[in-house]
Amino acid sequence: MTSINHQIRLVARPAGVPTPSDWKLTTEPVPVPGPGEFVVGVEYLSVDPAMLTWINATSSVVEPIAIGAVMDTAAVGRVTASNHAGFGVGDHVYDAFGVQEFVRSNGDGVTKLDPLLAPLPTYLGALGITGLTAYFGLLEVGRIREGETVVVSGAAGAVGSVAGQISKITGCRVIGIAGGPEKCRWITEDLGFDAAIDYKTQDVRRALPDLAPDGVNVFFDNVGGETLDSVLTQLAHGARIVLSGGVSQYAPNQARGPANYLSLVEARAAMIGFLTPDYTERYPEARAVLAGWLREGRLISREDIVEGGVRAFPDALPKLFAGENRGKLLLAVSQRQ
Amino acid sequence: MTSINHQIRLVARPAGVPTPSDWKLTTEPVPVPGPGEFVVGVEYLSVDPAMLTWINATSSVVEPIAIGAVMDTAAVGRVTASNHAGFGVGDHVYDAFGVQEFVRSNGDGVTKLDPLLAPLPTYLGALGITGLTAYFGLLEVGRIREGETVVVSGAAGAVGSVAGQISKITGCRVIGIAGGPEKCRWITEDLGFDAAIDYKTQDVRRALPDLAPDGVNVFFDNVGGETLDSVLTQLAHGARIVLSGGVSQYAPNQARGPANYLSLVEARAAMIGFLTPDYTERYPEARAVLAGWLREGRLISREDIVEGGVRAFPDALPKLFAGENRGKLLLAVSQRQ
Repeated sequence: MTSINHQIRLVARPAGVPTPSDWKLTTEPVPVPGPGEFVVGVEYLSVDPAMLTWINATSSVVEPIAIGAVMDTAAVGRVTASNHAGFGVGDHVYDAFGVQEFVRSNGDGVTKLDPLLAPLPTYLGALGITGLTAYFGLLEVGRIREGETVVVSGAAGAVGSVAGQISKITGCRVIGIAGGPEKCRWITEDLGFDAAIDYKTQDVRRALPDLAPDGVNVFFDNVGGETLDSVLTQLAHGARIVLSGGVSQYAPNQARGPANYLSLVEARAAMIGFLTPDYTERYPEARAVLAGWLREGRLISREDIVEGGVRAFPDALPKLFAGENRGKLLLAVSQRQ
Repeated sequence: MTSINHQIRLVARPAGVPTPSDWKLTTEPVPVPGPGEFVVGVEYLSVDPAMLTWINATSSVVEPIAIGAVMDTAAVGRVTASNHAGFGVGDHVYDAFGVQEFVRSNGDGVTKLDPLLAPLPTYLGALGITGLTAYFGLLEVGRIREGETVVVSGAAGAVGSVAGQISKITGCRVIGIAGGPEKCRWITEDLGFDAAIDYKTQDVRRALPDLAPDGVNVFFDNVGGETLDSVLTQLAHGARIVLSGGVSQYAPNQARGPANYLSLVEARAAMIGFLTPDYTERYPEARAVLAGWLREGRLISREDIVEGGVRAFPDALPKLFAGENRGKLLLAVSQRQ
């Protein structure tokens, strides 16, 4: 087994999407577990749009990543060495392990995973925060009901692709907004969305009235900006806008409020913010439901897995902001072989 | 009794706040009631910020005022002639009578008023849509609770001044945002607000943390724009922003979305639109409660009454956008003498 732990550390605080020079690859010896500790060999890392707010230090929820620190992220891996009674070598585990190949843990906050329930990458996709955000955002915050019309932005993205499928399973009519014909084809033909709007070639505001003639009951927004403003003009009475994210808004000084927000008044609608970790106690229940749908083939979890190990992280993150990922963007860490 | 009915008609569609040349004073004979009809002599007219959206034709709720039509507005008056079994001469009545001295009606939509419960102008103030908007907006939409911190913008305005008082009656801590020392003095010393922020001389974003150290639970917003963005930075967990209006946003092309709307996510907060007429069935109940508070002296209804009859309307409306009114702006129609 290798004795070197490769890590990616933040060395500059960029104004927007970071470039490779904002990162540094460092090495240190693979940690050795102390008493009551174990070491995890990371196999897959999550790459998320919200990382931009941790790097740019614009989030008030998450501590900004310190300059010089290992980049934070959720990850799954296997225990490679253990002095911990609860975690044995070979156990599959999940936690915020960071962008590195090995990490030492005392078990606090670490979730043990069942590899028979779903493949490891799925625990960062439909069974991870991605799927849980779609699940609680739609069912608890948006309170979607059978027969309603749901619009999802970033529909071919990690959260959006799961959100659209959960809406279909619930009996809603689902319209996805995505960029490009391949993504639009994927969400309608493979994921079962009723319709797709290609925002790169279509005017969302003009396309919606035909697709949602009675208005939009729930808008599950991952994007913000112009997309949000367009959907605001098409709300049904009593509509709910679920603020899942705002990928167009994360870079500093790119924030642009929805100029049409007063449409909420005319529609008697609400725009609602939420954070998935507020539902932590209900994760097991939600994971069981999602795993059931996966097993039955009603829910497809697609992970876009970038190879190349932690070294590939600096080039992988910008893909999210260029709209290049299909489904949940993950990084495969070479230690898995 | 005079036989001439003076009316104010819209003759141009201005891009923003109308000027006197956008209006025309016209005359026609005082109408005569047909079978089952009566005629009302208008005594007080309501002058409202939302009129701008009817004039500019930017509302999707209210039909825009047609060029050449009598300007629409809520009004109170007395029946001057009647062939209607339900309405006798001298009865006090309320309806959307328009900016004119006399109007014929078949009684549809007309509310009979009790002049002993409150003076006629109060039926356009605390007992009118003004007071009802504050009542339902806070108690039903915002669901204010004892001990919460409520911020009201446009706090010296018609709806805002009632909203702050209802919040105090409910047991909340209330901070008003208003322009100028006289308005700030009025809402704190006369109306009992706990604190005031003078947005003309103070930075709302900097002033709020001291006044609401645990964050804002409910923001009752009449203004929008920069004020909304400032309060968005100070929300308590689970905050509700009640969209009562957006006086800064009503003119075309002045709309500017709240750039800080993603603060709703971090605060798990909601921004909620509503329209008071949705609660029409509960108006009698709400009016009884409001009238009780008025009688007990716990609620002060202040009407800013402009004299001069319908002729004064073109000069009265712009006062709202210059922030010149104190409480509900009304126009006294000369026929009352």
